[in-house]
Amino acid sequence: KKRKLLPVEEYVEGILNGNITLLSKAVTLIESSKPGHQQIAQEIIVRCLPYSGKSIRIGITGVPGVGKSTFIEALGKQITGDGGKLAVLAIDPSSERSKGSILGDKTRMEELAGDKNAYIRPSPSAGSLGGVARKTRETIILCEAAGFDHIFIETVGVGQSETAVHSMSDFFLLLMLAGAGDELQGIKRGIMEMADLIAINKADGNNAEKAKMAQRQYQNALHLFPPKESGWEPRVSTCSALAKNGISEIWEVIAEYRKATVKNGYFIKKRNSQASFWMHETIQEQMKRAFYQHPEMKEKIKDFEQKVLNSEMSSFLAAGKLLEIYSGLK
Amino acid sequence: KKRKLLPVEEYVEGILNGNITLLSKAVTLIESSKPGHQQIAQEIIVRCLPYSGKSIRIGITGVPGVGKSTFIEALGKQITGDGGKLAVLAIDPSSERSKGSILGDKTRMEELAGDKNAYIRPSPSAGSLGGVARKTRETIILCEAAGFDHIFIETVGVGQSETAVHSMSDFFLLLMLAGAGDELQGIKRGIMEMADLIAINKADGNNAEKAKMAQRQYQNALHLFPPKESGWEPRVSTCSALAKNGISEIWEVIAEYRKATVKNGYFIKKRNSQASFWMHETIQEQMKRAFYQHPEMKEKIKDFEQKVLNSEMSSFLAAGKLLEIYSGLK
Repeated sequence: KKRKLLPVEEYVEGILNGNITLLSKAVTLIESSKPGHQQIAQEIIVRCLPYSGKSIRIGITGVPGVGKSTFIEALGKQITGDGGKLAVLAIDPSSERSKGSILGDKTRMEELAGDKNAYIRPSPSAGSLGGVARKTRETIILCEAAGFDHIFIETVGVGQSETAVHSMSDFFLLLMLAGAGDELQGIKRGIMEMADLIAINKADGNNAEKAKMAQRQYQNALHLFPPKESGWEPRVSTCSALAKNGISEIWEVIAEYRKATVKNGYFIKKRNSQASFWMHETIQEQMKRAFYQHPEMKEKIKDFEQKVLNSEMSSFLAAGKLLEIYSGLK
Repeated sequence: KKRKLLPVEEYVEGILNGNITLLSKAVTLIESSKPGHQQIAQEIIVRCLPYSGKSIRIGITGVPGVGKSTFIEALGKQITGDGGKLAVLAIDPSSERSKGSILGDKTRMEELAGDKNAYIRPSPSAGSLGGVARKTRETIILCEAAGFDHIFIETVGVGQSETAVHSMSDFFLLLMLAGAGDELQGIKRGIMEMADLIAINKADGNNAEKAKMAQRQYQNALHLFPPKESGWEPRVSTCSALAKNGISEIWEVIAEYRKATVKNGYFIKKRNSQASFWMHETIQEQMKRAFYQHPEMKEKIKDFEQKVLNSEMSSFLAAGKLLEIYSGLK
């Protein structure tokens, strides 16, 4: 089945007018692997770029079971209730989906899905983390051009995707649960250190006391880390997304962060370094892919890896030989 | 001045006989940037590889002022006193040297420098982190072939080099000082999480009490992290390298780690994944270098980066154009 394509102009005009159907169609082109679709998508992005950027991009992560969907609904309704327009995107590479992610399912965010000022777009489903991240990053541009001034980028806190989300967010929010003892179970090392805010969810009923304790514990742990370049001291909040307790307080913290970092220049500095980061990231990713996916290289790489493991060759020599073979192929 | 080269056979024989002069000459070839030297170095390495690996490789990091040299001397003398042979290597890319590193200076480890069972080799002085790390990794191979069954790889705890050291160590030791409040000042995020042992140095005199407090604090902080793949629970010790207190206890912890990870198979598993990691790392590093250092690319990269920052082009499109230009050049 051949999808009918519109002229670039129509997508762009639709997006700039806030037409959700055309926005969705353009995002589908971004996600498509067909070269023709990619070309149109790139033209749309270039045309939308001057209208993008006027938003706050909030990365949200947390392990399955932490109540992420409920939290996103609660914080999202707060935003649309205040007159904001919210796009909810996700990074969820297929390789991680099997680990229990439930991202990309509109049915789990019914209230937001029915909200005219919210746009929920499931994660592009296929491809490497780098590919998925690139698509999400480009989708942000179109959403911003369509007038969404609040962007959530969510991911499940079990893999490498947090780093990708962090590299396209202004503010990074880590959702946690109060547990017993080893609170960070399941959260990969280093994620806590990226957080601008740790929100301990499900702080209700019998859990409220435990959440307060966890809050103090995290606050102490955060103090052990060196100051952030943003000048921002990461906070720890408790909330109950279900009971909608603590949500407006979290929203105020985010607003405070934005104000502080816009003022000290970090906000735009980070945006610029992210844009440049993604250019270099894409270059390196594509060079790597060309090398590792070259049909004549796959077997050779395995062979030389085995030689290294057998101590027949140093890692460095094996790399050199493989690059020699590769440059002879092109 | 032309350095006189020996036949490969002579270097190899010398190294296998534990001849320090020939070992040093071979390491100098590893560090040389001349292609001819590199070729001989690679031949020596290949010949030594089958005799390498029978050691414990201990990464040691800590900010300047933590007493790293004194600690290395104390732990080193413990090792040679027990009949071990110790090589002390370092990773200290020139870019970081200006930040206050004092690595590579034998005079700061006089006792060890005079010990026949110790070999101190300063960090290769020039080049990128990747290049320096590669040279250190290859030097490990020669040292092991020369009979050194204990390898220290030290670095200053202010930059990216800890990750490199971690990726070639069996055991990672972080030296700290007891301070007031924010203990981790100056230690880059994530380094604490790599540690198998945090040793709080200068735990003597008036400082002993503070060190004990810091020990408890770190122990609590470490509990917040998820279990390590090694199955090892990171420890926190106090010591005084100057007074030689707590050093033999630290040595026992390292022995315990080795025993536990050899038994559960993690020791060899980690070694293998490090060897494969370095092969892939070298491939990617060299591809990157070829791209970024191509004389005709430098200007273009700057141009396109500027276009991205001006929102004239998406990061992805700019990357694609640059790769197109690059592949037309070769």
